[in-house]
Amino acid sequence: MNKMIYPGSFDPITNGHLEIIERASKLCDELIVLISHNINKKSIFNKEERIELIALSTSHLKNIKIDYTEELLVTYAKKNNCNVIIKGFRTFNDYEYEYAMATYNNALWDKIETLVMFPSLKNQFVSSTNVKELAMFKADISAYVPSVIVDKITKKINKK
Amino acid sequence: MNKMIYPGSFDPITNGHLEIIERASKLCDELIVLISHNINKKSIFNKEERIELIALSTSHLKNIKIDYTEELLVTYAKKNNCNVIIKGFRTFNDYEYEYAMATYNNALWDKIETLVMFPSLKNQFVSSTNVKELAMFKADISAYVPSVIVDKITKKINKK
Amino acid sequence: MNKMIYPGSFDPITNGHLEIIERASKLCDELIVLISHNINKKSIFNKEERIELIALSTSHLKNIKIDYTEELLVTYAKKNNCNVIIKGFRTFNDYEYEYAMATYNNALWDKIETLVMFPSLKNQFVSSTNVKELAMFKADISAYVPSVIVDKITKKINKK
Amino acid sequence: MNKMIYPGSFDPITNGHLEIIERASKLCDELIVLISHNINKKSIFNKEERIELIALSTSHLKNIKIDYTEELLVTYAKKNNCNVIIKGFRTFNDYEYEYAMATYNNALWDKIETLVMFPSLKNQFVSSTNVKELAMFKADISAYVPSVIVDKITKKINKK
Amino acid sequence: MNKMIYPGSFDPITNGHLEIIERASKLCDELIVLISHNINKKSIFNKEERIELIALSTSHLKNIKIDYTEELLVTYAKKNNCNVIIKGFRTFNDYEYEYAMATYNNALWDKIETLVMFPSLKNQFVSSTNVKELAMFKADISAYVPSVIVDKITKKINKK
Amino acid sequence: MNKMIYPGSFDPITNGHLEIIERASKLCDELIVLISHNINKKSIFNKEERIELIALSTSHLKNIKIDYTEELLVTYAKKNNCNVIIKGFRTFNDYEYEYAMATYNNALWDKIETLVMFPSLKNQFVSSTNVKELAMFKADISAYVPSVIVDKITKKINKK
Repeated sequence: MNKMIYPGSFDPITNGHLEIIERASKLCDELIVLISHNINKKSIFNKEERIELIALSTSHLKNIKIDYTEELLVTYAKKNNCNVIIKGFRTFNDYEYEYAMATYNNALWDKIETLVMFPSLKNQFVSSTNVKELAMFKADISAYVPSVIVDKITKKINKK
Repeated sequence: MNKMIYPGSFDPITNGHLEIIERASKLCDELIVLISHNINKKSIFNKEERIELIALSTSHLKNIKIDYTEELLVTYAKKNNCNVIIKGFRTFNDYEYEYAMATYNNALWDKIETLVMFPSLKNQFVSSTNVKELAMFKADISAYVPSVIVDKITKKINKK
Repeated sequence: MNKMIYPGSFDPITNGHLEIIERASKLCDELIVLISHNINKKSIFNKEERIELIALSTSHLKNIKIDYTEELLVTYAKKNNCNVIIKGFRTFNDYEYEYAMATYNNALWDKIETLVMFPSLKNQFVSSTNVKELAMFKADISAYVPSVIVDKITKKINKK
Repeated sequence: MNKMIYPGSFDPITNGHLEIIERASKLCDELIVLISHNINKKSIFNKEERIELIALSTSHLKNIKIDYTEELLVTYAKKNNCNVIIKGFRTFNDYEYEYAMATYNNALWDKIETLVMFPSLKNQFVSSTNVKELAMFKADISAYVPSVIVDKITKKINKK
Repeated sequence: MNKMIYPGSFDPITNGHLEIIERASKLCDELIVLISHNINKKSIFNKEERIELIALSTSHLKNIKIDYTEELLVTYAKKNNCNVIIKGFRTFNDYEYEYAMATYNNALWDKIETLVMFPSLKNQFVSSTNVKELAMFKADISAYVPSVIVDKITKKINKK
Repeated sequence: MNKMIYPGSFDPITNGHLEIIERASKLCDELIVLISHNINKKSIFNKEERIELIALSTSHLKNIKIDYTEELLVTYAKKNNCNVIIKGFRTFNDYEYEYAMATYNNALWDKIETLVMFPSLKNQFVSSTNVKELAMFKADISAYVPSVIVDKITKKINKK
């Protein structure tokens, strides 16, 4: 596969995201890590901060492109000539959500393909939401996010 | 990706399997459709019959190889220099099963990667088991298996 | 609604089944309690015994017909001019199974309609399988099956 | 059955709702499509708009009554001498929610009966929420809502 | 076991909570009913009201201590020399949530132990949220909360 | 708590079982590891072998008693003056099963209490069934069963 898109909020990137990025990047020539703006969800980290945190976390990988979109995922995919989306499950509650999304995306563009990966067990419950809550309590988050961004996240959350 | 393995019992192949084969074959140079012998499950169709039904159903595809193994999936994968497995969900009950399998396989060989696809809605509940049960009642199975093999399946089931 | 079919194995009838029968019988002129022969499952009670246990348990209801079939449910429904099937969930594991069955039946006959009821909480985990296992241990099953058939079930199970 | 109530937010009505309405209307003399005001959820379409969209979508059906309530569903049902509620599942996440609702309603009025239908596969993931999100992106929603109301929904959403 | 902590929002306490409190209090010398402040959720009852409602509901139990914290549960547990948390499931949707919480807490303090109880069937769907919604409609809530606090809850909700 | 019972088939004991045994043994004076004969399931290891494997695996623990029963769990519990059962989930499919068992046991003896623990993530998918299947393929099972019994299991399975 030439290109794959890994879309998400990345608010902020976690070890769960990084695992998918590392595994997916081995399966294609270029992996686009795509921050998709969610009109219904308020983010803690702004666009520039999220891009920076992803860049710092993926600096050891050669074939990553970080991008941002306010369009529908399929619209972005078409424009970028990329028809493979990669997603990671966290828990079985994601199952129906991802199935629905894959179905909607396929109705919008019948060439789009969605592939899903299971996280390794240690990352199964890691989520941006939990990381932010732990950081608010000044608890140690170093098991859940890349080490190069631990401080940046902790500072940001407690400055708010 | 050079090669991918799509393992299963294929007893017999259904439209659900064929959909995954068609979609997966576009993502790699060669797709190995691998009949894996399940020591705990008795099959209705023997090895040769299952191979023939898959061959008939996939004759329109260029990059398919059909194979059979009595080894562990990971052992087969290693020997064939292929580290990507593709699976299709049928229903959410498959979720934990596939997660467990991916976890076990990864423990056996840390280079193995498991990717999962969602079926299109029309194939969501299609399974070999249901096809066989319908055929036993001489009900119409043409919506669930490739048209070229409808007769072969019906005859086999009712000869038993 | 004129007629409804309530299909099942009824091996034997439980309070969970009886609840659905009582509630469904209020919604139609005639409720057919249909024992469907399952070729893949060995029953403990034979056809005549299952009919007798249902008859004893439903003697207080006027609009019940008990029947038996070895055909596909939809074939039976068509022949009996009845296009409404009523089912009861036991647990959420039944959800996908019943959804699949409803989908298959609808493909066989597009006039068939499947309605589902939730059990009252006290009957949520009541199943023929559990009743038989308790009876094998000579435990009290009177909370799970109609009182008029407690003895018949206990005797039968322990005679086996 | 004389009357059945099909309650919901209908913000706005989708093809998923319409399917249940069409199927349920065949099972009773009168089907009340009941818009129930949800104090915890802000709607996009107001009361009058939601009524209009349902009316336009169901004009081909003879036995539909559209109504609106700010009372508990059971209070409305009692006043209207109707003790059968019909609901449609969308996904298995609805299972526990509908079970809880049926249990609460039964505690409020022991004569109330809740029946559930499975959607056809093509409508499985159709929801008002998804329709509104697609419309916001000016994506094509014609596969998800009745054709007579596509324009009205698109305009409304983009005027907001 | 010397001490156990039963944490929750208790906004307000329900019969579901009381059941767990009564059962858990038999398994230890002291049960701490811990109101944990949730920064992301707005409560209807304030701290003092929630404490009072729990005190009234548990006055028949000898070994209950009611407490309140704005810290992480594990921080509170450590300070109070208590390493056993007891939780009650309500529905299977709680399963993954509680599993995640137990995993996070264990990462924070490897001595912490989480035990879970199943509710009796009659309390399966009882939740503070549903109680508050019923009270808003002036419906009878006496089946869902301890009798000594029915009036206090009803008044509070309707004064808002 | 004085005593707790940890029931199971233990055919054979795995690291998943051992984890629960170690954690539960800290919560009580005596933990009874109870091999319960399942009349519907054929075991690979006989009674004596299963006892030996548990004894070898738990020799570092002081307060373990290993026992065997062909009675109902509740009958055994009553006779041994023990009213607390401890269980471990493996996956969410166990949720409804354990809930049903706890409900049945409580109906048989209202003093019985069932507590459940979540496995640590690394043991989430470990099961006797999977261990036996891996051993049959002569795969490495040392990550899934206590080291002192790896050889005994491997030999037994391949002698069969």
